Amino acid sequence: MLTYSAPLRDMRFVYEELLQGGELQSLPGMEDVSPELLGAVLEEAARFCEKVLLPLNQSGDQEGCRFENGQVFTPKGYREAYRQYMEGGWPSLSCDPAYGGQGLPHMLHCMVGEMICSTNLSFAIYSELTHGVYELLHQYGTDELKSLYLPPLAEGRWSGTMCLTEPQCGTDLGLIRTRAVLQEDGSYQLNGGKIFISAGEHDLTENIIHMVLARTPDAPPGTKGISLFLVPKIVPQADGAPGPANGVECVSIEHKMGIRASSTCTLSFNNAKGWLIGKENQGLRAMFLMMNRARLWVGLQGLGLAETGYQNAVHYARERLQGRALKGPVKPDKPADPIIVHPDVRRMLLTMRAYNEGMRAMSVWAAARLDHSERQTDRKTRQEAEDFIALITPVIKAFFTDLGFEATNLAIQVYGGHGYITENGIEQLVRDARIGQLYEGTNGIQALDLIGRKLPAHAGRHLRTFFQPLEAYLNKRRNHPHLAPMVGAVAKAFGRLQRASVQIALKGMQDPDEGAAVAYDYLQLFGLVALGWMWLRMSETALAKLENDPQGFYKAKIATARFYMEKILPRSGSLFSSIMAGAPAITEFETDRF
Amino acid sequence: MLTYSAPLRDMRFVYEELLQGGELQSLPGMEDVSPELLGAVLEEAARFCEKVLLPLNQSGDQEGCRFENGQVFTPKGYREAYRQYMEGGWPSLSCDPAYGGQGLPHMLHCMVGEMICSTNLSFAIYSELTHGVYELLHQYGTDELKSLYLPPLAEGRWSGTMCLTEPQCGTDLGLIRTRAVLQEDGSYQLNGGKIFISAGEHDLTENIIHMVLARTPDAPPGTKGISLFLVPKIVPQADGAPGPANGVECVSIEHKMGIRASSTCTLSFNNAKGWLIGKENQGLRAMFLMMNRARLWVGLQGLGLAETGYQNAVHYARERLQGRALKGPVKPDKPADPIIVHPDVRRMLLTMRAYNEGMRAMSVWAAARLDHSERQTDRKTRQEAEDFIALITPVIKAFFTDLGFEATNLAIQVYGGHGYITENGIEQLVRDARIGQLYEGTNGIQALDLIGRKLPAHAGRHLRTFFQPLEAYLNKRRNHPHLAPMVGAVAKAFGRLQRASVQIALKGMQDPDEGAAVAYDYLQLFGLVALGWMWLRMSETALAKLENDPQGFYKAKIATARFYMEKILPRSGSLFSSIMAGAPAITEFETDRF
Repeated sequence: MLTYSAPLRDMRFVYEELLQGGELQSLPGMEDVSPELLGAVLEEAARFCEKVLLPLNQSGDQEGCRFENGQVFTPKGYREAYRQYMEGGWPSLSCDPAYGGQGLPHMLHCMVGEMICSTNLSFAIYSELTHGVYELLHQYGTDELKSLYLPPLAEGRWSGTMCLTEPQCGTDLGLIRTRAVLQEDGSYQLNGGKIFISAGEHDLTENIIHMVLARTPDAPPGTKGISLFLVPKIVPQADGAPGPANGVECVSIEHKMGIRASSTCTLSFNNAKGWLIGKENQGLRAMFLMMNRARLWVGLQGLGLAETGYQNAVHYARERLQGRALKGPVKPDKPADPIIVHPDVRRMLLTMRAYNEGMRAMSVWAAARLDHSERQTDRKTRQEAEDFIALITPVIKAFFTDLGFEATNLAIQVYGGHGYITENGIEQLVRDARIGQLYEGTNGIQALDLIGRKLPAHAGRHLRTFFQPLEAYLNKRRNHPHLAPMVGAVAKAFGRLQRASVQIALKGMQDPDEGAAVAYDYLQLFGLVALGWMWLRMSETALAKLENDPQGFYKAKIATARFYMEKILPRSGSLFSSIMAGAPAITEFETDRF
Repeated sequence: MLTYSAPLRDMRFVYEELLQGGELQSLPGMEDVSPELLGAVLEEAARFCEKVLLPLNQSGDQEGCRFENGQVFTPKGYREAYRQYMEGGWPSLSCDPAYGGQGLPHMLHCMVGEMICSTNLSFAIYSELTHGVYELLHQYGTDELKSLYLPPLAEGRWSGTMCLTEPQCGTDLGLIRTRAVLQEDGSYQLNGGKIFISAGEHDLTENIIHMVLARTPDAPPGTKGISLFLVPKIVPQADGAPGPANGVECVSIEHKMGIRASSTCTLSFNNAKGWLIGKENQGLRAMFLMMNRARLWVGLQGLGLAETGYQNAVHYARERLQGRALKGPVKPDKPADPIIVHPDVRRMLLTMRAYNEGMRAMSVWAAARLDHSERQTDRKTRQEAEDFIALITPVIKAFFTDLGFEATNLAIQVYGGHGYITENGIEQLVRDARIGQLYEGTNGIQALDLIGRKLPAHAGRHLRTFFQPLEAYLNKRRNHPHLAPMVGAVAKAFGRLQRASVQIALKGMQDPDEGAAVAYDYLQLFGLVALGWMWLRMSETALAKLENDPQGFYKAKIATARFYMEKILPRSGSLFSSIMAGAPAITEFETDRF
């Protein structure tokens, strides 16, 4: 059985010491968001996650969801946990106070989100998608729809879904066939089928609000003819009370490698009533708002699962007695030493630790930038924050889920054969982590997004929000008495990233396959450099506090940073070589010979 | 549902064109082992694996083993498949003709083994461990035991197990507590418990022969007091007919991440009757013979599963229509192009291909060396082959299973979200592949074996069996008109491996943690170089045949080699950096701070 203790100390280090509260208190509506407030909410969240969600994680995986006559029943205990989740006010954390929300920052939501993913990813999927639907409706809905739908969504009484995928189209949304026909009352009638709909049907909420991509009869072909519709499971009356059931049927649920307590549904829309969201044929643009938020959140899943993996691996490595330290017994009174004395076990633990604390710093930093992108009054600063979020979203989604999968596998490895046994709970983390690399756009698609959309956008404007401050940061510290070696390591990796960017830009102009063939390596290189920067900044913060360090917290930060620089960051070299070798080894292989 | 077609063409390339039949026909008893004979047996094996084993793979995973009152029932169809396996004579392939065997080479057994692992790893575990028991008994058993036990083991009527692990000891066998007391009739009485015993109980064979590590009453503590015993489930009479049931009880079976059709048993020995194998207190030495064979075979599991992953990913990538080639539609008549046109999909497929064909060449080459190590009449040549096998065993076990896990995950990634769905079968490959990195000694333990035992052995004699011929090979081809760039790439990686070896030898003498901390990186570097050499040799062979290449087989070999050199081998650079940074970042981290 897994254990988990929310990393509150490390979170406080990040939001308070490293990021100075994300400088949120200067933003309108955020004046009261002090580090103390954040700390108090995080402690509450930790309690909920540790006491309510974690105990259901393994039993939920074992039991799975049950499908019966179009209804989905979540595993034992999920309904009660969801009730407590609502009562705690968690659904409305960062929602707009005008529509039932608490108006707290994304930065806080991010840290709470990490804890929920750490303790019960299946549960998180029910709760978090709702938030995306809320934001989408908040931005694109009519006042009437907003008044009717947003409050119960913020409350968590209703939940939400994204309905994109159809059997013949996942990545390629231009192939969507679901049809929507305008009715006399201004609503639309939808017909078609969707697959892989997370939380598409379940027993946790009174209503489920589907955001559905579909085509109107005279829509142009491809992605330019896709519109977005709100389709409730139960059509609410004007006062929000339940009206008639809508023509939405859950046909089946999937059997999956992991996230088994989360229902993944095939939905059939049969003359279902829906309402247009945003403008006709501009549905993808609106949906991308939700998808981009969801992508940031999927990145958090990688971090959350990796953290649980790390904690349990450390625990196991302290308890499990096997062999002796090579330099002589550490526990001579015991039959053997704990395996944490073995360098290869420490290598695995430090790898996880370096990933996790690096990801945490980066995710909270990005979430604070997201708050700035929405609330900054200064137009230029706001635009920069927006550009940065656009740039970093695919990196966080893909790099974090890749690291999360690697880290949870390292946790299994620390357990040895015991990690393979279901009862020990650790292999579930790997199965749950695997989905993050696939949904909300596979990680290969994220890499194409980074290289094909984000890099060239506005002649590199997105990229500059990362490159320029990093360059300035490094330049200022090249001769820092203590940081210089780490600055050198990051500068070297950053130099490779810069040269790779130039090469891709130049070659990609002549041949689009040149960028596509190295996109995945490039995203990895980008992620390594970004985490390297985080580790530099964390080291600098920790260095200033070493004199008052009774727990050795800051010393450990610097030691982990060193590990990252010496053992992880060198991967930038092989990625760089692979990128510079270009596309031919990939594109010239004859397709028939595969 | 997965498909599989045995890679007979590539196998033929390896054993006939690349390795000239492993030069086996010069060995005593191998005079008739012609490429034609090998080809005929492989075709038969392919039919059995494709038609009998593959169809049971997914149903076996779904159904799992059933445990009832100490008995284990394998999934539906496994008994019948095992009967056909016996009837086909597969258990006795490389067994000694003096004891019911066919006397065929390990090289052939290796390729058949790959196919069995490709099509049904759970089944393979029942069948293959028996072979290890056969070899162990063949080498260390008395004539009486050999006559009684070897023929039914070769026939497959009886199966075998390795009983090492106990709850308090996996890696650290010095902690074994199972006790064996000499009886008046010369047999021993065993008491104790073992866990994680693969095929420890099942319904496929008439008898199960356990090879059990235990202590005699006056045994010295630690690994020097461990003896090996043969403990049959049913004590045979002198003529082999079933006698009384022995005191061996299956207490439970494990629920596991994968290999679910394979029973993993907790066994209790209660006054069980056993016979000493080899000398008292020298049981580990004998067991290591079996374990080393098993480790080579576990490496094959990585290859086998990766091959099935590759084949299905290619199939899916050809069929799945999503998006358009960046340079313009390839199938303008279809709603979209097959995803095999996308460079990132091709990158994944080529990565798998480069791994698999490289692993296949190396495994068959190693198996041929194993044949030489057992049959060579020239003492020096035989010793060299033995040394090489000792050296390469941990590399094959760990590197191949790591690549196998990575490759099967790439196969999921090609499928996208569909890869996460159980029914599509591909996620099972990942779950099944994960065990290879854990059992028969975790991959971390393999790395320690390589660096702590194999490198220093006889002042580097093992290492020279790899380094010297590789150096000579490269030196001869530095100016080869076509191979030179690839020779340069391998020489660069090999140079890193050589320097890393020196650094480890020097630093390790002062501090054993220095080797242990970089052992894992070193093993990876070793594996990359070894596969690089394989790809060089394959390219050279293919180059000579390009003029007669109607199917483009040789051209594809060279193209895949290029991919390996440009996209995979550069990883040697980051591993080298990490190794040269040494142990401090790992060993100096304060244990209490984890």
